[in-house]
Amino acid sequence: MVGGFLEHISSPADVKALDSKNLPALCQEIRTTLVRYGKLHGGHIGSNLGMVEATVALHRVFDSPLDKIVFDVSHQSYVHKMLTGRAPAYMDERLFGTVTGFTNPEESEHDMFVLGHTGTSISLACGLAKTRDLMGGLDGTSGTRNVIAVIGDGSLSSAIAFEGLNNAAEQGTNMIIVVNDNEMSIAEDFGGMYGQLARLRASGGTSQPNIFNAFGLDYRYVEDGNDVAALVEAFSQVKDIDHPIVIHIHTAKGLGLDAEDAAAGVKEGRCEANHWQDPLAAQGNPLGARKHYGQLAMARLEPRFASEPGLVVISPATPGSNGITREFRERAGVHYVDTGITEEHAVAFASGIAKAGGTPVLATSATFFQRTFDQLQQELSLNGTPVTLLVFGAGISGADNTHSGAFDIPMFANIPNLTYLTPTSGDAFLAMLDWSTTSHDHGAVAIRVPGEPILAAERAAATHGGAYPRYRGGTAAETHAKGDAGNADTPFARYRVTRQGTDVAILGLGNMYPLAERIAADLAESGDGGVSAIDASVIDPQQCTSLDTACLEALRKRHSMVVTLEDAQLSGGWGEQVTVYYANQDGLQPAGVDKHMRVLNFGAAKEFTDRVPAQDLYKRYGLTAPQVEQAIRSALR
Amino acid sequence: MVGGFLEHISSPADVKALDSKNLPALCQEIRTTLVRYGKLHGGHIGSNLGMVEATVALHRVFDSPLDKIVFDVSHQSYVHKMLTGRAPAYMDERLFGTVTGFTNPEESEHDMFVLGHTGTSISLACGLAKTRDLMGGLDGTSGTRNVIAVIGDGSLSSAIAFEGLNNAAEQGTNMIIVVNDNEMSIAEDFGGMYGQLARLRASGGTSQPNIFNAFGLDYRYVEDGNDVAALVEAFSQVKDIDHPIVIHIHTAKGLGLDAEDAAAGVKEGRCEANHWQDPLAAQGNPLGARKHYGQLAMARLEPRFASEPGLVVISPATPGSNGITREFRERAGVHYVDTGITEEHAVAFASGIAKAGGTPVLATSATFFQRTFDQLQQELSLNGTPVTLLVFGAGISGADNTHSGAFDIPMFANIPNLTYLTPTSGDAFLAMLDWSTTSHDHGAVAIRVPGEPILAAERAAATHGGAYPRYRGGTAAETHAKGDAGNADTPFARYRVTRQGTDVAILGLGNMYPLAERIAADLAESGDGGVSAIDASVIDPQQCTSLDTACLEALRKRHSMVVTLEDAQLSGGWGEQVTVYYANQDGLQPAGVDKHMRVLNFGAAKEFTDRVPAQDLYKRYGLTAPQVEQAIRSALR
Repeated sequence: MVGGFLEHISSPADVKALDSKNLPALCQEIRTTLVRYGKLHGGHIGSNLGMVEATVALHRVFDSPLDKIVFDVSHQSYVHKMLTGRAPAYMDERLFGTVTGFTNPEESEHDMFVLGHTGTSISLACGLAKTRDLMGGLDGTSGTRNVIAVIGDGSLSSAIAFEGLNNAAEQGTNMIIVVNDNEMSIAEDFGGMYGQLARLRASGGTSQPNIFNAFGLDYRYVEDGNDVAALVEAFSQVKDIDHPIVIHIHTAKGLGLDAEDAAAGVKEGRCEANHWQDPLAAQGNPLGARKHYGQLAMARLEPRFASEPGLVVISPATPGSNGITREFRERAGVHYVDTGITEEHAVAFASGIAKAGGTPVLATSATFFQRTFDQLQQELSLNGTPVTLLVFGAGISGADNTHSGAFDIPMFANIPNLTYLTPTSGDAFLAMLDWSTTSHDHGAVAIRVPGEPILAAERAAATHGGAYPRYRGGTAAETHAKGDAGNADTPFARYRVTRQGTDVAILGLGNMYPLAERIAADLAESGDGGVSAIDASVIDPQQCTSLDTACLEALRKRHSMVVTLEDAQLSGGWGEQVTVYYANQDGLQPAGVDKHMRVLNFGAAKEFTDRVPAQDLYKRYGLTAPQVEQAIRSALR
Repeated sequence: MVGGFLEHISSPADVKALDSKNLPALCQEIRTTLVRYGKLHGGHIGSNLGMVEATVALHRVFDSPLDKIVFDVSHQSYVHKMLTGRAPAYMDERLFGTVTGFTNPEESEHDMFVLGHTGTSISLACGLAKTRDLMGGLDGTSGTRNVIAVIGDGSLSSAIAFEGLNNAAEQGTNMIIVVNDNEMSIAEDFGGMYGQLARLRASGGTSQPNIFNAFGLDYRYVEDGNDVAALVEAFSQVKDIDHPIVIHIHTAKGLGLDAEDAAAGVKEGRCEANHWQDPLAAQGNPLGARKHYGQLAMARLEPRFASEPGLVVISPATPGSNGITREFRERAGVHYVDTGITEEHAVAFASGIAKAGGTPVLATSATFFQRTFDQLQQELSLNGTPVTLLVFGAGISGADNTHSGAFDIPMFANIPNLTYLTPTSGDAFLAMLDWSTTSHDHGAVAIRVPGEPILAAERAAATHGGAYPRYRGGTAAETHAKGDAGNADTPFARYRVTRQGTDVAILGLGNMYPLAERIAADLAESGDGGVSAIDASVIDPQQCTSLDTACLEALRKRHSMVVTLEDAQLSGGWGEQVTVYYANQDGLQPAGVDKHMRVLNFGAAKEFTDRVPAQDLYKRYGLTAPQVEQAIRSALR
């Protein structure tokens, strides 16, 4: 293996300056670098390994940033980053993590957008091209020449991508859409379209119907999408083209990883597992909350498949991340459907299943449910279909800015007729899942799958024999009485008072419930310097879509203050509803009547955060025991 | 013309019982009934006229409700309603309006879903079919046999429809997708796909590439989609089919309307205008707020096209409703883009235009912006692109339950980095439009186009010479000082105090600002029975995405109470932010310090409402002058 090229590449000009015979060696060096980076650091390695040659060819042929390349999802942009001045971040482990996992205009003029959700590249590229065309076209004054969208690796079947294809053809001017066809999505490919793509591959791109032609687009095929010379040739032919064209390239996802993996004994699940993380790095580590609780849920549902023909688990393309293992999927058979990366379809599909009497359970990330806001409201909640949604990765985390889970409550909690449950333990999670999938006497139910704070509390209790989890079954009448608030009609509408105190009541929603317990325990102890003990109540609200006003009113007897804790955006969220309830009740009293409950809300700010560790965010938002305790002590003084 | 069939049809069985030679006469009678209904009552007449024969044929061949028909958007379901027991609601003008404009399971077992947004029918049908397949297939126990999705009239190019096509093929079992190809969308068709559809029509369905085949679907073509016998034959052939198939029917939108219109002198704009309303009924009436303010905005932008090449108006398929007239569009040329019914693409497209230095203005309804929630957050706000969104039809209205504009504030106001402006007059609206389209020093700006309450106030002031509108230009430094709150960086971040009083401050957001003025005027008068005058302040917040905390703090000096008014869902909305601000500020004071601002919030409940007149909703939510005044007087007593 020849080395030493990559370290001398600080911009695309250096790729152009190389002798063409050295391009394969550069690709090999990049591939080796990526594999090492993936093993040490993790990341979207599989998809990037497949795109090494295509990315080198793009920068060999086109003139970024005059020519603008938009990477769909931008999880295939590592090689692009290496070739645009950021190679050290992949070569030098001290610098790992100094560049983001997605394109980012703040990092480089060669990055067009911050992108992390699928299918939008063609629409964005249409916009870049539109401005160019308005300002004189390829030779005009816009500062944009060729516009290139790089899409594929499953994202082609995402709703907006089709809208983009359809509109690119209508627009009719220069645009080059590189379709990276690696025969895979995140897990497997799904959809009738992929059969036709297979026929295109088999025929060398000549078979009909050609879906790209069907959208009115010109088309070329490159069989060996990992042959850098063939790609350079193909891209050169379409540079400065006067109409939109699709370059369909056939690549091998994860190319270069197999030998290394095989030597280390890793034999399967490669493409799924290395989507996010090298499998070797994950071996032996305890499961994170997503997989832990996801596996719990699937294990709870699986025994019911035999006697409940209509019970179906639906996952739009990311089963592995959520504990829906390959083994489970195989055993589930027709009771499992992967819809590909199509969240919108998945929600409407689930509503149809429920309407016909089936029992759908739809699992995906909080951040991806955002795509379904309209379907959640119209096809689901307006129609009152009893669908269960499992919302993974919700809450404050160290995620990048495209995948934050902290926006879920403002979205889910403000849709009429939808119930958003916030379990505070694995037992509560399963009780809620049992209810929502066995009773059909409710509309849409979303369950916020417990996150790391709850898993940590449960593991600590298991280790040390503590009081957590406090959740006790689903039989006690007092905990399952129907709430009298708003549109609440679930057995979880009543708040659970788990510690009865005075002075201050701490309402800990979902993942923040362990923090509420911790704060109450701390406050119960009189501290140094004459700090007196406070006997706080602790409450598990169980859900965030209706208020238990009976509980809130009852709190007035012995409490002068209520504190709400949630690990999601405060603005538009849940704790504010508690505040507003008291304010409007109290505000209506005649002047002079001192009936006033004080409320403090703790939660996330309305902001995007990018890979800030969760612990830092908790501190930033005051969501730590010392900060909340200080606020309570100050106010009660 | 033979009449008298329709009145004897009370269920699909009656359609089946007719002699087949009488079907054309039934269709003619339905068409005449529809035209009369449209002229007297309004509605989606054009699309329904094109679907008369297809709907009769569907109920002639299939056995609803065992066979399940899902009407996309369900704006083509009037004939279906006539044939399923609801004909009197279209024949007897005393009964007009007793059925909804969309399918509704509460009306009939033949209606599968409440639907009003485009493209979801195939996904919903996939769900119905999935449950059927899990429960034994066509002859099983599910209660579902054939599943039929009726789509078209422009909705085929909607994002989720493509996901549906792709997944229907994957599913592989019985499903009949009727594509109503009337060569039109709401305005014109857009997208490269439509060229291929035209070739399919020209070739009698034989040309390649066939986009439906490309998605892996079987396909048949019916050239005369208004020939009931041909349709009966086509549907009969595919009844109980064992795989998904597309029946592409070529229909004439508005068939039967032309002669009547021509006789009345209506010659153009037919298909757009009669999408919602018969053009004759609209003639001579003053424009509603949507068209009035939409035309104002377009007139403001148009003179700039000559000198600003990058200025572009984008409308996803419903220009006419928003005052973007055919004449404007023709004059605008390349400065206007209709993307078809593709809101998601439109938002990403706009972000791309802005990124490349253009100035996009994207106009659509509040209810349709819901589809773009993820693009608003990711492609727009996260990327900080200076795009202007014109949000039409926002706020409380008498709309049906699928098109409510009262959910806009919880959605827009909780997205980081997005500014949602709420003008209280036409002048303010144009000043905000000027700023957002001339300054690029901001991220996404959405402008809530003024609604009927503001138009009424402006018209009343014009007639009677009153004080409204109060908005004064964009020059006064005190009104345009930058706010110091949150992420506010707009010249409209500061609240405008338009009436300086004491005791109570009334904050009237957007459309509710005239109500705030009215209440203050009423309170200023001492009433009967010794009711004393109250000198209220009136405030125009101008926007709802950040708080002017300096203003809120200043109010403490002379006010003990703040009232917020908004014509949108309270839960997750704007007024609650004001409440929460005061509560958290006050809650942090040590016990015993009496620093407590009372707040009352008025706005819409978290609920779906269906064609309830706006005035009734205002009363329901306490948003009338007497109700607010009583609350204020009670509290201050």
